[in-house]
Amino acid sequence: MTKSYHVAVVGATGAVGTQMIQLLEDVTFPIKEVSLLSSARSAGKKLTFRGEEVVIKEAKPDSFKGVDIALFSAGGSISKQFAKDAVAHGAVMIDNTSAYRMDPEVPLVVPEVNPHALRDHKGIIANPNCSTIQMVAALQPIREAFGLDRIIVSTYQAVSGSGIQAIDELQTQSQAILSGEDFAPAVMPVKGDKRHFQIAFNALPQIDVFTDNDYTYEEMKMVNETKKIMEDEAMKVAATCVRIPVVSGHSESVYIEVDQDNVTVAQIKELLEKAPGVVLQDDPATQLYPHAADAAGKKEVFVGRIRRDLDNPRGFHMWIVSDNLLKGAAWNSIQIAESLVEQGII
Amino acid sequence: MTKSYHVAVVGATGAVGTQMIQLLEDVTFPIKEVSLLSSARSAGKKLTFRGEEVVIKEAKPDSFKGVDIALFSAGGSISKQFAKDAVAHGAVMIDNTSAYRMDPEVPLVVPEVNPHALRDHKGIIANPNCSTIQMVAALQPIREAFGLDRIIVSTYQAVSGSGIQAIDELQTQSQAILSGEDFAPAVMPVKGDKRHFQIAFNALPQIDVFTDNDYTYEEMKMVNETKKIMEDEAMKVAATCVRIPVVSGHSESVYIEVDQDNVTVAQIKELLEKAPGVVLQDDPATQLYPHAADAAGKKEVFVGRIRRDLDNPRGFHMWIVSDNLLKGAAWNSIQIAESLVEQGII
Repeated sequence: MTKSYHVAVVGATGAVGTQMIQLLEDVTFPIKEVSLLSSARSAGKKLTFRGEEVVIKEAKPDSFKGVDIALFSAGGSISKQFAKDAVAHGAVMIDNTSAYRMDPEVPLVVPEVNPHALRDHKGIIANPNCSTIQMVAALQPIREAFGLDRIIVSTYQAVSGSGIQAIDELQTQSQAILSGEDFAPAVMPVKGDKRHFQIAFNALPQIDVFTDNDYTYEEMKMVNETKKIMEDEAMKVAATCVRIPVVSGHSESVYIEVDQDNVTVAQIKELLEKAPGVVLQDDPATQLYPHAADAAGKKEVFVGRIRRDLDNPRGFHMWIVSDNLLKGAAWNSIQIAESLVEQGII
Repeated sequence: MTKSYHVAVVGATGAVGTQMIQLLEDVTFPIKEVSLLSSARSAGKKLTFRGEEVVIKEAKPDSFKGVDIALFSAGGSISKQFAKDAVAHGAVMIDNTSAYRMDPEVPLVVPEVNPHALRDHKGIIANPNCSTIQMVAALQPIREAFGLDRIIVSTYQAVSGSGIQAIDELQTQSQAILSGEDFAPAVMPVKGDKRHFQIAFNALPQIDVFTDNDYTYEEMKMVNETKKIMEDEAMKVAATCVRIPVVSGHSESVYIEVDQDNVTVAQIKELLEKAPGVVLQDDPATQLYPHAADAAGKKEVFVGRIRRDLDNPRGFHMWIVSDNLLKGAAWNSIQIAESLVEQGII
């Protein structure tokens, strides 16, 4: 008999939590029981899960009794509040916040890239930042074949990464502008920051707050997490992270330099065609390239516009798109759970 | 007595032509007479210019009789159709299309960068592509001081660069999506190309059609025009051009490598603070950075998010924003006319 698991979702009513529940319903993951947890405010709501009614409960320290896998996506402070309880009750915590990502004791995992890191877990496993996940999933096959010396990325990020309030703001603000009505930005670019700007019909070069070096935290997440996942501190990585008026689906303009001469675009396309979790969409003759509206709702990472740099023979440009709530968050977390089972770790 | 000029605007009812007329009304440029020209379809419409009613006329070969300066912005085929007539009648043609930009006989001018090139004109002067203009205007002060070895740019371009139909499509499509109604993309990414995709709440990595090397014409315009304007064929330039759901205001994530060691961010900021036509908006502590909604309707090029690359000491990243219909098109054309007068060329 196959082993089956008690899975808890913390942040069950959030943008990512909702996707996690949907994915757990659809995939064949062996579930014995599901606990849907939230703040006191959202507790009491009812959901149907695999045909049965489940009541959302307030997350409390003893909520993790008997839980095997706890999927957290309710903000870093909630993860920190309950991490000890979850682990003490024997659960493996898969955390979708930034709380533990750079903790040297915590594996930071994209299953297509570094599944082996799961073996070293001490109770907590971190799910990387959405913009990092899709980039490393697309670049890993290239790196394995030709080495990767440098990445320069500019992102085109959807608002859903900032949660349901951000989606609401984009939609109501878009409607206000189309109707010629007034509006007062209150959420974007960063809910907790001092100033707020129009996101509808605009592009804001700030995601998360600024760090001391004038990069934002989002940009430094892409830099530091990429190095940790690819286990290469010497890799050169720079990022500019920009919020655009898209609901779901992050796009990335990525420039890379490989470690070898004479690599061809055809070779890179061939690698990506075979790569797990990656879909090559690249045919300029038929205007085939990925875009957010097409990628939304899908689990894969889509890559196109691959072309050689005009000056550096080791340089290549490409366009990487994925649903930030799926591969960028919920789906990667479920894949981590699946990989734990497949590798016999849990 | 100051000399004054007969100015013609060809494409008077288009997105750029409308801005040209508005700017000519506002600036102190010495105008003796204005001719507003269009296709037969738009002819007959009336506009008020400096208090007088002007009837828009169909552009014909003899429309340029007595014209001193002809501002063209009605598409490349119209520019080619009337260039000889305009020049034969003694007009200086300032062409906002791509028809003559790479012609070695035609100066390609951004007045803040290469006004001296105007002296070599043979009747036609080309106004560069919108995305190129704002980038070179911002980078020229840096290049003059420290040299410029390399540019890698990813753009976030507004739809108004594709004309009034593109603006209409973005607005009606946005409304349809917000209202849950069906829609059929018919204009974006490129009106004349085979396939059309959703632009509302999306990002499309195609501007203009593809060239043989899998870059788009827009991307190759940025590469080739930048080298021509900066008079440096050896400069390394690469571009990824992306259309986003913004009405007006192009944004650019730009990575540069300068030719000198020990250049500081403070030095670059100091240069840009003094640069003509450039406004520095760069203070992470107060979330000050440029964005399209703020730049729309303004003539300047706005620069912010300036920071050193994390690996290459000669590398810097920045965010450059400008109104693509103004500095990117209409305003740069008027500035060319002004520079012709100031330099005594006309």
